[in-house]
Formats: sequence, C-alpha cells, structure tokens
Amino acid sequence: MSDITRVRSLDQRLLGLEPDPDDEDALSFVVVPHLCRGDGRFYGGAALAASLAASEAVTGRPTLWSSTQLVATADLGERIRVGVEVVASGRSVDQVDVRATVGDRVIFAAVGSNGSPRPGGLSGPGQVMPRVAPPDDAEPWHGPGRIAAEAEGEPTFMLPAVGHHLVSEHREAPLLDGSPGRPGHMALWARLRGELGEAHEMTPAGLGFLADMVPIACARACGVQGAGTSLDNSLRIGDVVDTEWVLLELDAHVAVGGYGHGHVHVWSPDGRMLATGTQSAILFSVDDMRARRAARPG
Amino acid sequence: MSDITRVRSLDQRLLGLEPDPDDEDALSFVVVPHLCRGDGRFYGGAALAASLAASEAVTGRPTLWSSTQLVATADLGERIRVGVEVVASGRSVDQVDVRATVGDRVIFAAVGSNGSPRPGGLSGPGQVMPRVAPPDDAEPWHGPGRIAAEAEGEPTFMLPAVGHHLVSEHREAPLLDGSPGRPGHMALWARLRGELGEAHEMTPAGLGFLADMVPIACARACGVQGAGTSLDNSLRIGDVVDTEWVLLELDAHVAVGGYGHGHVHVWSPDGRMLATGTQSAILFSVDDMRARRAARPG
Repeated sequence: MSDITRVRSLDQRLLGLEPDPDDEDALSFVVVPHLCRGDGRFYGGAALAASLAASEAVTGRPTLWSSTQLVATADLGERIRVGVEVVASGRSVDQVDVRATVGDRVIFAAVGSNGSPRPGGLSGPGQVMPRVAPPDDAEPWHGPGRIAAEAEGEPTFMLPAVGHHLVSEHREAPLLDGSPGRPGHMALWARLRGELGEAHEMTPAGLGFLADMVPIACARACGVQGAGTSLDNSLRIGDVVDTEWVLLELDAHVAVGGYGHGHVHVWSPDGRMLATGTQSAILFSVDDMRARRAARPG
Repeated sequence: MSDITRVRSLDQRLLGLEPDPDDEDALSFVVVPHLCRGDGRFYGGAALAASLAASEAVTGRPTLWSSTQLVATADLGERIRVGVEVVASGRSVDQVDVRATVGDRVIFAAVGSNGSPRPGGLSGPGQVMPRVAPPDDAEPWHGPGRIAAEAEGEPTFMLPAVGHHLVSEHREAPLLDGSPGRPGHMALWARLRGELGEAHEMTPAGLGFLADMVPIACARACGVQGAGTSLDNSLRIGDVVDTEWVLLELDAHVAVGGYGHGHVHVWSPDGRMLATGTQSAILFSVDDMRARRAARPG
C-alpha cells in the first residue's frame, strides 16, 4: 500500500503526488503545465519520475532501477493514478510493477527494483566523467522545443507557455577531450529552477525528470538535427547526492529503420555517477517534422 | 493472440516454445538443462529470449527493445507460460507487457516495444567496435560457472551437467586499444554451438540469450573477481544480421551498496552493432560466496 509520507519532499513538490481520491491504496497526480513537453503533451521524464516516487512510497526502499514504458499521452488537467504491485519482496530487494492509468487508459507502465544498501556490499566506479566547461560557460539550450519551433518555421524562438522548462534549465557544454569525437556524444548541464531548485536537493525522481534527452543525441548520430518520440525512459541509480547542477552525458548507441537507442550518464559536478539511463525512440529530423506539418490538412 | 508460426526457427529450437496446453492464447516452454545457469536455476538470458520471442509471436513485428525483470526462479522441468498483452498498437509500433508464470508464481515480467522499419527512417551508428583478437586467438571462458566453482573450493574446474554452456560458448578477447583501460571494460566472443549454431542464424532472442554477462564486468570494476544475481536483463535491438560469432563488449557503469549497473554492446565481427543491453545486479565477490557457503548449516 502506498504511504504518502514516504514520498520525498522534492518529489512531492515536483509531481504533486497525493493519495488517489478514488483508491486510497494508490497515489495519483494531476498533469500540470510543468509536467508537459513544450507541445502540451505529458512529458516522459515526468512518467519515469512518478514511477520512481510511487515505487519508493510503496516499498519504503530507494530505487535501484526502473524501466518506464510510455504507452499513451495524457492531457493537461487529467489525473493519473499510479498503481504499484510488489511482485517479489526479499531481505534487501523488492521487485515492483507499475501501471499508471487515466480511467481505463494505460498512460505508462514500468518494471523495476527498490533495494536497501547491503552492509559491506561491493561498490566502485565504472566510468570517468568527461571534461566539460562549467555551467556558467555553457550555452542555454532549449533542444526539443527549439528544434520543433524551427521545424514550424517560426522566425524567432519563444519558449512555450507549458513545458518542463518552467521548472528546469539545460545548458549545452562542449566536451573538451576526445576530438573529433562521435557526433552523438554530447553533454548538457541541467538543474531544477525556481522554488524546486532552491534547496539543491536531488532524488532519483528528480534525476529522471531532468535526464530525458537521449533522442536528441540519437538524431545527431544520424547526422541531422532532430528529436524523437520516446518509447521508454529507463534509469539505474548510483550514488545520489544533493547538488544544484547535474551533467547529462548523452551518447547514441545505434539507429536502424527510424528507431534509435542511446544512454545518458548523470554526473555530479565533482564526478560521481548519480545515475545512468537508456532510452529508445522513434526519431525525426527537422525536415521530417516540417514535411509532416506541410501534409496536415488545414 | 500468440501465433506459433511467427516464432523464428532458431528461437523455436532454442526455447522450445509451443502453444500452452491450458491456454491456446499463450505460448509456454519447459525449463530444460540448457535454459539453466550452471547451478541449475533458470537462466536470465533465457527469460529475456522468451520475452522477445513471445512478443514477436503476438505482434508479428521485430523487437525494438525489452526490459525483462527477473522476479523468481523456476526449476528444471517446470513449464513457464508466457502471456503477452499489447497495451498500445500504432501504425508502426506495438507496446507490449509480458508476464511469465508457473501457476500463480510470476517468474519474469517485461515491458517493451515491437516495431516495423519506417520507410526513410533515420539510421546511423553511434559507437565504434573495439579492436580485439579474433575468436581463434581468444581464451575459453567459463565465467560465472568457474567463479562459483572457485568459491566452492573445487580443485579442478569441471563444467556442470546443466547450463547454457550446453548450447553456447564464450571466449575472452583482450581489448587491444585504450590501455591501461577501465577494469570493468572487457570483451567476450560468444556463439551458439551444436545443432543451434550450425546455420549461423541470429535473432534478437539469440542475442539476448548470449549477452547476459554484465554483472561479471561490474564485479571487476569493483576490483574483485565475482558475479551477480541479475535483477533484470534489458536489450535494445540494432541491425541484426546472421553471424556465427558475436562480440560482447561489456562495460560497468557504477556500483553502490552492493548493487551494480552496466552495459553490453553486441557486435558482429565486421563491426555492426546488433544490439545494446543493460543490466542491474546484486553483486558478490568470490570471497562473499565462500563466506556464505561456510555459514550454511550442514
């Protein structure tokens, strides 16, 4: 059963989770403007964040990993119920299945694990953070929103009235080593801003909310500016520490037939891997988006 | 509904999938010796392979990705029923949820997508295959089995009577570039052998069956010889071509509190990325295994 008191303060404020009015065993939340993409559709990073926060509320254990499948979109103002089933419970690990719905419509579904640290358990870093310029020297970045605006032929880019940029900020930081480098390997500084960012808190859900950018890297690896419709948003949790900025190190793996895969390593400024994620997406170039718009009736 | 005629020939022979005797809408298979680990428990790579093959049988579309959560073990001789629900179906992509059971016990669960190639869809490589010695110059490798045998204090290593090595072979290939390198970055050549390997066929399920080795790399990144109990087995599919050998490029991401995460890139010998996977696992060193054995009653 969901225990709302187990939802971390940051996640509570980010997602607005509360006991579902129709089912006290579940949590639910309303799709507000900052939980959308710039086009007004429910944001995949918010789906992952809600899976993580709801699983922690049910198990009382921190997240180890979650693979959150993005099934359908939800509209602004709709209430999403997040049901969590514990399919196995061990001494240190719970296995959870999540299904989030609006009425009978499945919006997202997830499988994952929550686990308590094991005394004396193995620990170690596997990767090294890339060298990049600090956030103050990085360029403001409005990736998917700006890319979509360019595809629409808008003369000047205006931030849309809805979108996760209302509570978050991304800046592109050039990688300083490894030139010429792979075109799909890139880095973004990201932070929560406004009231959510004030205390420099970080949680698995907060990381998931900020890290949903892999399709951008996949499009670049195909040699075009573009974006994607994510099929999923998967995150594995390392050493989460409170921090204002995180570095999203994005890298494309491969794209075939219009579908691309890649990863994101999420770093603290001092080089700890906070989390590592993967995503698959249907990829679109800016030209594809423009052609689709031209083909639309009216 | 499952269509057995859509199960690829290799997957049919590898897994023994057939219409479930008690439920003609589902497929099922029996846990035979080559679908186990060396310790006689059901093998995670077989769970992923069955998720992929069953999802292809229901959707008629090739796999894009699957995240298969390993919930409980199954015993030799048990019949596992693999139920697939299509939670969304679009013009080119189906979203699937899988739940595999023995009676009321959930053995594994998965979320994933199957998709038809999109005409003119973006394609491109994101990574470059590492340079390694060819299979003929690589060392026989019996990783988890040998590591467990060492932990049991066996004087000479004998391949166990059950295990996926009955139909597969792995050889460790040193990475030739990037010295000194990261300790969790390693490469294994892998192939199906015996009757299954004769035609040099390859399928997403075959790749999933061979690629379940990430925890080994995670233990090495922690500075020890060891292995792990996988929590999941996730795979994203690139450009699958028929081949005898595949190269498993394993790399650790991070381990904290006894839990580790890492990836596997699966390459054809000529440098195509066939698939890319990730796993999380509870990690154990050889010393941990020996201590647990010593603490056992009897």
